[in-house]
Amino acid sequence: MSGGHEPAGSDLLYGIDDIPPPAESVVLGLQHYLTMFGSTVAIPLIMAEHLGIQDDPEKLGWLIGTMFFVSGIATLLQSTFGNRLPIIQGGTFSFLTPAITICGMAGLADQGFEVKMQHIQGAVIIGGVAQMAIGYSGLIGKLLRFVGPVTIAPTIALIGLALYPFGAPEAGRHWGIGGLTIGLIILFSQLLRKKHRAFELFPILLGMGGAWLTAIVLTQAGVFPEGHPAHCSFDKVAVAEWIRIPMPFQWGMPVFSLAAIVGMMAGVIASIVESVGDYFACARLAGAPVPSPKIISRGIGTEGLGGLIAGVFGTGNGTTSYSENIGAIGLTRVGSRRVVQVGAAIMIVLGVTAKFGALFTTIPQPVVGGMYCTLFGMIVAVGLSNLQLIDMNAPRNLFIIGFSFFMGLSVPQYMNANPLEVAEGAHWAMAMLADIGNTLGKTGMAVGATIALILDNTVPGTAKERGLEGWGANAAQDDAPSGATTSAESASKNEEE
Amino acid sequence: MSGGHEPAGSDLLYGIDDIPPPAESVVLGLQHYLTMFGSTVAIPLIMAEHLGIQDDPEKLGWLIGTMFFVSGIATLLQSTFGNRLPIIQGGTFSFLTPAITICGMAGLADQGFEVKMQHIQGAVIIGGVAQMAIGYSGLIGKLLRFVGPVTIAPTIALIGLALYPFGAPEAGRHWGIGGLTIGLIILFSQLLRKKHRAFELFPILLGMGGAWLTAIVLTQAGVFPEGHPAHCSFDKVAVAEWIRIPMPFQWGMPVFSLAAIVGMMAGVIASIVESVGDYFACARLAGAPVPSPKIISRGIGTEGLGGLIAGVFGTGNGTTSYSENIGAIGLTRVGSRRVVQVGAAIMIVLGVTAKFGALFTTIPQPVVGGMYCTLFGMIVAVGLSNLQLIDMNAPRNLFIIGFSFFMGLSVPQYMNANPLEVAEGAHWAMAMLADIGNTLGKTGMAVGATIALILDNTVPGTAKERGLEGWGANAAQDDAPSGATTSAESASKNEEE
Repeated sequence: MSGGHEPAGSDLLYGIDDIPPPAESVVLGLQHYLTMFGSTVAIPLIMAEHLGIQDDPEKLGWLIGTMFFVSGIATLLQSTFGNRLPIIQGGTFSFLTPAITICGMAGLADQGFEVKMQHIQGAVIIGGVAQMAIGYSGLIGKLLRFVGPVTIAPTIALIGLALYPFGAPEAGRHWGIGGLTIGLIILFSQLLRKKHRAFELFPILLGMGGAWLTAIVLTQAGVFPEGHPAHCSFDKVAVAEWIRIPMPFQWGMPVFSLAAIVGMMAGVIASIVESVGDYFACARLAGAPVPSPKIISRGIGTEGLGGLIAGVFGTGNGTTSYSENIGAIGLTRVGSRRVVQVGAAIMIVLGVTAKFGALFTTIPQPVVGGMYCTLFGMIVAVGLSNLQLIDMNAPRNLFIIGFSFFMGLSVPQYMNANPLEVAEGAHWAMAMLADIGNTLGKTGMAVGATIALILDNTVPGTAKERGLEGWGANAAQDDAPSGATTSAESASKNEEE
Repeated sequence: MSGGHEPAGSDLLYGIDDIPPPAESVVLGLQHYLTMFGSTVAIPLIMAEHLGIQDDPEKLGWLIGTMFFVSGIATLLQSTFGNRLPIIQGGTFSFLTPAITICGMAGLADQGFEVKMQHIQGAVIIGGVAQMAIGYSGLIGKLLRFVGPVTIAPTIALIGLALYPFGAPEAGRHWGIGGLTIGLIILFSQLLRKKHRAFELFPILLGMGGAWLTAIVLTQAGVFPEGHPAHCSFDKVAVAEWIRIPMPFQWGMPVFSLAAIVGMMAGVIASIVESVGDYFACARLAGAPVPSPKIISRGIGTEGLGGLIAGVFGTGNGTTSYSENIGAIGLTRVGSRRVVQVGAAIMIVLGVTAKFGALFTTIPQPVVGGMYCTLFGMIVAVGLSNLQLIDMNAPRNLFIIGFSFFMGLSVPQYMNANPLEVAEGAHWAMAMLADIGNTLGKTGMAVGATIALILDNTVPGTAKERGLEGWGANAAQDDAPSGATTSAESASKNEEE
């Protein structure tokens, strides 16, 4: 066992500043697009029913197009001017509950799609502005001085672990196709890696492509009839428009209502905590140094900007960092920022050309579930890899790490069954606190992060045990008022000893 | 960060062979008794309804007494002649589903308590004999040559993680009392550890005791009325018998029916896999060397013997190793075998004197849930501490560890919603396979262990990456035909480099 510590990205095929040849960049970018596709399409599909457009494929198509268009813009902003990490931005599940609550509010439930959307847009815009303030003011970075690897390890790992309901249950809608996807991705990424460069670079694309193709063939052969979970129909592609460019305020001017805004803040807080964890995971896998408070502040601020743009265009959602794409970096060992920027361009182009976008909606759900199974585990592992920085024989660390992990799964189990409730007619501040408590309490990584943060800063332990020695040096260096912009592209590795 | 590897138990207060002073041993033994109490009482309470004795407190009391009596005997056998680890034996949740299934079988559902129990006893006896064969033949030890830290880390961690439905949801029946238990255990074990030796040695006893006392006072004060989740009533203590010694075949002679036996085998397999993980966790925390194939074989064989005894006396269950008590060793850093033997004696004495046993049934559920929250996390952490043996920057390890963790939570989620079903009138072998598949598929650590075992032995990786260097040396040494009985008490530490 090696005594020192190297970043997990030390044997990357392409590092964060590397620029692969154009053709390779496009295929790698497409692989990121495929990886983020499932979640990004899932959000408008889940919202459709609540917005009342489940039977209006045209509006739904526009909404999906807007989603990808805005995701592309947010990703370009984040990777170019924000934290400059190779991190995909897209719609966030943590905004779903607040947005659905807004659709069901008194006085809105009977209204049409546009009115509901305008209220959501108002809340998302204010949420985005608030997040920009939290980020760009440096507030979030200040809190980071208390965050060491003891906190970061369970936080990141719980991001991946908490997604367990979306793995096997989705792949298991049809184990033949879901298992084929998993098997092919393992085959290419783990067993045949050395046999051909294509296997090494594109295991997700090839795995999903192979399973998708199989589903198409079996659908044509009549084995997967309509309604079968692995059925592939191209009807939606045929009727889709060629070009539609989303416009700001395309559903009307946003409406700002206090209740809607208050509810959305819980989603904003959950998204911030998760994104901070994502930055650490992404930097580790892409071979970048541990993100400094400055980089994290800028990243969170830029996510707020992405939310503001999402609110202006009306995706019915905000933006956040995508864990599955960080998993893809771990699997492919391609950490290039350029690849993510090409992926963002693909999102924008395919968001505008609805016909092509519709093509990818034919990917059957078991294929997406199979991909999730292989990528979410990667997030767990990269979280756990932070444990090598700390002394895992120190009883305090064993207790803090174990307790935060366990409660990160156990408390959401409790909160889902027993959400906080406020009495009818309670003060709006109480309702807001209950909303925020429920959202955070159901978010495993927020629970685990909070517990680990408090205990790591109160239970006695040496800096060496806590893994702050190499860690702190790096953060302190970035804090120094050197004037120079220290960012993730800095080539210095986080070496110890 | 230290370059080498020391066992987590390197700063134990009492090592595996140490013998604390008598009074201290008794209090430490009582602490183990309190730690195992919740699960051991839960099993007869859950079975009561299915056995039809939920309204017969006398039979239920006898059943609980028998449970503790047999647990004490099995623990003495295991710690003295079996794997000789400080590991508590008791009833196992993995036998619950098969036993409940037997109670509901055609022809049995309408029968009385004794007949149902006789069928369960027959199945448990055969299961125990089968487990003795698997253990004492050395078969289980042979399989271990394929097991390295890459497999062991997620396996142990998933034992703890998978128990998340029993943590916060139990403590949360009343957060005041549940939270007090958690807070006191953290206060004593982490924050005040150095202030007084009692805090260091008895944090669980003091934490549970403090919360229990609070619940008693508040019950007396009328704050916790009857029916309140933290209500403490001593009525059951008053009516309990003083002495009742369990007898073999006290419910009649066992009945051996194929269907019952076949169902029970799934529970046996799940129990074996989990116990192997427990041995590694226990040895690590108690400062014993990595368990050799010989020790594991003997341990599993002795668990089979314990099951046989449980079947003969009729506990309605078998025996397995208790994860929460391993967690207690991690928290208190008392790894003494003698303490566990004293705990076993307490189980036997209190199992026979029903009045005292009944006293502990007044501990309110939130106190037990709070204790679970602090101890199950310890199992997670000791599993994760095995990661220091492997290269957590090697992409193969990241993938294998992450994928096994994720699937260990995700597959049970799927299997609980979609259990395997066989057609009416299918061959009994098919039904058995479906039963075994369901039991294992719902057991996270079995899923994770299987995936990690297969991938770690197929995906290319060096012995150094896989952490087999120090590990293998130790196992090989124990495999050598030296004639001497190499056992866990061997003083040699598993040092590296």
